[in-house]
Amino acid sequence: MTRQGMRPSYSGKRVLVTGGLGFIGSNLALELADLGAEVTILDSLIANHGGDMRNVAPIAESARIHVTDLRDVGALRVVVKDQDFVFHLAGQVSHGDSMRDPELDLAVNCSSTINLLEACRHENPRAVLLYTSTRQVYGCPARLPVDEDHPTIPVDVNGINKLAAEYYHLLYHRTYDLQSVVLRLTNTYGPRQQIKNDRQGFAGVFLFRAMRGEKLQIYGNGEQRRDFNHVDDVVNAMLLAAVTENCRGRVFNLGATAHHSLNEFAAMLAGLTDFSVEHVPFPSDRRLIDIGDYYGDWSRFAAATGWRPQIGLQQGLASTIEFFRRHADVYLR
Amino acid sequence: MTRQGMRPSYSGKRVLVTGGLGFIGSNLALELADLGAEVTILDSLIANHGGDMRNVAPIAESARIHVTDLRDVGALRVVVKDQDFVFHLAGQVSHGDSMRDPELDLAVNCSSTINLLEACRHENPRAVLLYTSTRQVYGCPARLPVDEDHPTIPVDVNGINKLAAEYYHLLYHRTYDLQSVVLRLTNTYGPRQQIKNDRQGFAGVFLFRAMRGEKLQIYGNGEQRRDFNHVDDVVNAMLLAAVTENCRGRVFNLGATAHHSLNEFAAMLAGLTDFSVEHVPFPSDRRLIDIGDYYGDWSRFAAATGWRPQIGLQQGLASTIEFFRRHADVYLR
Repeated sequence: MTRQGMRPSYSGKRVLVTGGLGFIGSNLALELADLGAEVTILDSLIANHGGDMRNVAPIAESARIHVTDLRDVGALRVVVKDQDFVFHLAGQVSHGDSMRDPELDLAVNCSSTINLLEACRHENPRAVLLYTSTRQVYGCPARLPVDEDHPTIPVDVNGINKLAAEYYHLLYHRTYDLQSVVLRLTNTYGPRQQIKNDRQGFAGVFLFRAMRGEKLQIYGNGEQRRDFNHVDDVVNAMLLAAVTENCRGRVFNLGATAHHSLNEFAAMLAGLTDFSVEHVPFPSDRRLIDIGDYYGDWSRFAAATGWRPQIGLQQGLASTIEFFRRHADVYLR
Repeated sequence: MTRQGMRPSYSGKRVLVTGGLGFIGSNLALELADLGAEVTILDSLIANHGGDMRNVAPIAESARIHVTDLRDVGALRVVVKDQDFVFHLAGQVSHGDSMRDPELDLAVNCSSTINLLEACRHENPRAVLLYTSTRQVYGCPARLPVDEDHPTIPVDVNGINKLAAEYYHLLYHRTYDLQSVVLRLTNTYGPRQQIKNDRQGFAGVFLFRAMRGEKLQIYGNGEQRRDFNHVDDVVNAMLLAAVTENCRGRVFNLGATAHHSLNEFAAMLAGLTDFSVEHVPFPSDRRLIDIGDYYGDWSRFAAATGWRPQIGLQQGLASTIEFFRRHADVYLR
């Protein structure tokens, strides 16, 4: 389905986006507004975690924006009332941070999710509730591509807590009939990503350094493979998943039509920017939580919704760089 | 191995038992003291959750007992120092409570576990660390008996949080080389169980009512099957698991040599006490989290340690009833 084909599903609908000032959340919120939805954003704006009011500048006036923490139960209950859709993107996503401060990761990913689910259960059980999880729940792949039945053996605290948050969503579906859907995202990149630090993965940092003509550090031999989704494809997946009844109570991988090594990723950037590459040994804290090669099987989600990613990596990187250069004052300083 | 055969492993050793004033924890602490260990107990004594100073009356003078919450990070770091073994039994175990107050369950089972693991990692990474998990992590059995490779699809918040706590233990083993072992307990009963309410399962409540000549309410037709472990067998399993190097970083089921229906359980009690039985429909909140039949495959643990349960249900119920009658002032009022 084209995006405009989804207009009837979202036009005039009330939609809550948690984490809506962050990378993926802001792209989703902008698209929802474009489709005619009444958008409400909840975001805690925890420093350096990607939330930024400037991400939603085009809808700063029209959207309701609450800067509040999902750990604030009272506010949450008021806000979820009357929403038709709740897209739950708020969370801690950095693998490294989760190992350095496991308590914060637990609070932001698990306590907040419980609060949101309890709020929906009591105030608005009919809302469609989409949760963005992560391929990190699988840990080191035992086979490739990784499908949803692959064992979940997370290699970091973030993977454990995101998995628990998935379980809560599915439990509240089975037990209280909440309309939950879980998507497991893989490496997502694109406009509005926080690229100044490595909290949102290496793709962002690579883009940042490449655009500044700095040296890229690749850990290991650079042959580890990943699948990359442009954020527009991810937003499309979320919009489709939320309106597909057959998705409720289920978990789906996203993924790409091709997978690439880090060296290939760097080579694609090299055609677009001017920088140098250095291969360095894995830092010990990174080695411990590295998962080797990963790419996901997204055929289950394709079968359920008809989704397929549209934007190849080379094309996506080009348009992303163009975006960041156009908004250098926000994202590159 | 007989218990006395384990004396060399524990005599003179420093052993911390979290939740050591509770049902299983107190039985373990008493046994450890009997084997010559220097026992330290941490317990938060949250009301009506099973902790009671009277459970450890025989060692009230000799053991170090700290009434403190595992959420108190500072105290924890001091206490774990110099321990040879840490048995982590503190936690919320009631399935029903976890659905009524998921936040508390998360705090007590997950935050506390993270705090304990961080304390061990920083202050005492060589201690052996045994975590008592639950068969509840499996959810509804897809096949019987349930072995450790059975999918984990918890049907309540408690199962999700206990599973996350297991994952933390295994992660800290892989990542920081902590000496973790995880045991998944099934229905445990015996002396010092909190039987006045249903927080520690139906077996306790049945015992309590039967001993008081009250009516037993069995939900459904009573044909649902369970495996029961006498607490002495569980203590034995923990003592063995902690001294078996081959167990580190692994997860094991406990289980019984036989399984019984609830009706059979009631019939065994009928030979020992005088009460009546009433079959009633499942209350809706119970139906939602009921798992049907469950009994576990404990052959992996038997192969690793030589453990096998020694106490049959009929014999175990008789001695348990005798204990409770002898201590009626503590447990039956």
